[in-house]
Amino acid sequence: MASANVRPVDIILEKRSGGEHDPERLEAFLTGYLQGDVPDYQVAAWLMAVCWQGMTDRETTALTRILAASGDELDLGALRHTVDKHSTGGVGDKTSLVLAPLLAAAGATVAKMSGRALGHTGGTVDKLESIPGFRSTLDQDTFLRQAQEVGIVVAGQSKALAPADGLLYSLRDATGTVRSLPLIASSIMSKKLAGGARSIVLDVKVGSGAFMRTPSEARALAETMIAIGRQAGRNMRAVLSSMAQPLGMAVGNALEVREALACLRGEGPSDLLELCLVLAGQVLEATGLPTPEAQLRALVEGGQALERFHRWIAAQGGDLAAFERLELAPDRTPVRAREGGVLAEVDALSVGQAAFVLGAGRSRKGDPVDPGVGVTLHAKVGNAVGSGEVLATLYHRGGKGVEEAMRLMERALRVAESAPATPLILETALA
Amino acid sequence: MASANVRPVDIILEKRSGGEHDPERLEAFLTGYLQGDVPDYQVAAWLMAVCWQGMTDRETTALTRILAASGDELDLGALRHTVDKHSTGGVGDKTSLVLAPLLAAAGATVAKMSGRALGHTGGTVDKLESIPGFRSTLDQDTFLRQAQEVGIVVAGQSKALAPADGLLYSLRDATGTVRSLPLIASSIMSKKLAGGARSIVLDVKVGSGAFMRTPSEARALAETMIAIGRQAGRNMRAVLSSMAQPLGMAVGNALEVREALACLRGEGPSDLLELCLVLAGQVLEATGLPTPEAQLRALVEGGQALERFHRWIAAQGGDLAAFERLELAPDRTPVRAREGGVLAEVDALSVGQAAFVLGAGRSRKGDPVDPGVGVTLHAKVGNAVGSGEVLATLYHRGGKGVEEAMRLMERALRVAESAPATPLILETALA
Repeated sequence: MASANVRPVDIILEKRSGGEHDPERLEAFLTGYLQGDVPDYQVAAWLMAVCWQGMTDRETTALTRILAASGDELDLGALRHTVDKHSTGGVGDKTSLVLAPLLAAAGATVAKMSGRALGHTGGTVDKLESIPGFRSTLDQDTFLRQAQEVGIVVAGQSKALAPADGLLYSLRDATGTVRSLPLIASSIMSKKLAGGARSIVLDVKVGSGAFMRTPSEARALAETMIAIGRQAGRNMRAVLSSMAQPLGMAVGNALEVREALACLRGEGPSDLLELCLVLAGQVLEATGLPTPEAQLRALVEGGQALERFHRWIAAQGGDLAAFERLELAPDRTPVRAREGGVLAEVDALSVGQAAFVLGAGRSRKGDPVDPGVGVTLHAKVGNAVGSGEVLATLYHRGGKGVEEAMRLMERALRVAESAPATPLILETALA
Repeated sequence: MASANVRPVDIILEKRSGGEHDPERLEAFLTGYLQGDVPDYQVAAWLMAVCWQGMTDRETTALTRILAASGDELDLGALRHTVDKHSTGGVGDKTSLVLAPLLAAAGATVAKMSGRALGHTGGTVDKLESIPGFRSTLDQDTFLRQAQEVGIVVAGQSKALAPADGLLYSLRDATGTVRSLPLIASSIMSKKLAGGARSIVLDVKVGSGAFMRTPSEARALAETMIAIGRQAGRNMRAVLSSMAQPLGMAVGNALEVREALACLRGEGPSDLLELCLVLAGQVLEATGLPTPEAQLRALVEGGQALERFHRWIAAQGGDLAAFERLELAPDRTPVRAREGGVLAEVDALSVGQAAFVLGAGRSRKGDPVDPGVGVTLHAKVGNAVGSGEVLATLYHRGGKGVEEAMRLMERALRVAESAPATPLILETALA
């Protein structure tokens, strides 16, 4: 497969001059790297050349396949209507917790392995683990049986999905080559392809709390990922959603599970529910189970989605009653409006950083996260606020990080005479 | 000096986004690399970002200073009118052998350490070592005394001049980042600055046998090197000369020394003499010894330059009488014109490669070169040639490389109905 006579420097020079790699030559180069025959300094130079010259869809697809094939690939062939969602990362994003039961209630199967994210808060598995008893380590039989019986299973990443992506990502992180559309797209899609679902919806976030700052950047990323997925035979959809302010009101692991539960009870914030309905509609259509939004809304209001959530958590040993009794971090500090007016800005990135400095996230693999800390917002952009009104509450455990979190929150919240319009869904049904 | 809190990835990102490095931050980054604290993959990514975004003169100057300061720097302060010439590399370029005695005869001092080049033929020291008895290893006292007494000394590189440049060059070679104007300029100038001469003339070659293919590329390189040298307080001049065909008629170590000797006797090829007169005029003016071309020509025709050459070679133990008796490689193979007409092209790169495959050059440090092999040309571009006329002669030792050299020479020589004009000096007196 990998032809031995590809000189790494020729691959670098080819990309440097704006050429397109033959997929076999690209594969030989990357396989050489993964086997330790091509040194990291040559791959580093190539990565920067990719940031400079870009990659064609054909090259990006080849790169994605190599990364996906570097480890285990889940075989979900025994399951019906396997669906998956990927969000490009945001602040306060608990959509997975609402979306999964909604999709299962609509007849699809959500069977995924989920990593423990680095970032402002933990990943989905970290959030779920704030529920007492919840087991995220499952053997393969249990994993598949639960998927069949409940329609949902979310396990920690016990298998090595696309391990080469992790290796390449570390090198990108150290060499200033993270920000590159084809590299971001292939990194995400390598894990999605290895994850095995037949139909995938991408939630590409746009705004200060997100990786993509403008809608056109986000659209280009979505289109590249759609092309990769389709090349690999998957049904693809994408939505662009705003991360101009955090999604919902809660940022923090247990706080977000509570909010997701409220949403499934029909009491949640409307932006969270709206996004989940759009994402569900898209991926259900892609998988051949088209479901009108009114019908999806009825699955929430009628309690079927909540019931599915209960069955899911119970199947993995979680005790929701114990979770409801659980104490959050005991100390509360209010963040008040200095003046009256309209809330004009809630900078998602700063709110995420505030939760992070309180202990909600991790900066290194293996670090623990604190489930009980975080931030709740009491107003959204456009709400009228009075001088001295509490706009947010910090949940924390005494001194650690509180001062910095307060500074970040004061920077995040801006009251003015008027507020900009903030549509949540910027583009839907990209396919 | 080097501030400890510069994160390498921030330097890479700064260059990637087209920013200009603060000289102190650039120095901290590169010093970290030289001390082994910054890994080569980060420098590789930075090098590619430099190829992409370029460097300002301020950055290029800082890089050059760091490379120059990485090893010994010759102190020629005790000598008067120290001058140096750098050629960006060409085929059949023996100018140093003619220029050095001409400059000394005109009152300047040429005191240089010269590396053993990789390439089609050896470097100046390799050429000199084809003279029996010639010593290229000199201690510091002998070096300075000879410079004062004879006005010329050329030693092998016993001191480590700009060793960091060698390290960086190896990395560039492996990462497809050799071709970059600021990186080429700083590499050359770091060695020139460490070499210590106060006045420097650059002979930037243009054409197929040279690194710079077009006059505008060559001019940009010259201007960058002039800026660096001037920042370091040196008197700078540059000339652009054509490498559309080899300089003179001989390519090979002893063959080139013979040609240089002939030139100093007033019997040499006119292009070689012309270039030496221009380079000498430029650097003498720069060092404050302005000398009209007629006067320089008189130093050759009157024998003063040749006399200086004899004193120089004798001072370093060389036996020119023994050199004149020396046998060249015994086998001779003629390269003939297939048809009559005008010699329209003598591709310098192919002629250089022919000499190389016969053994005149080295591809790895430490390899020996064969002084007796090479190529002589019997016609220049524009000369009328008859069918079957001998256009070149290969000097070799039997089978090794001869067939390939013949193929290269046949490709190099083109006879047509007319020939293009081939001015030798494309631009003079850049300063």
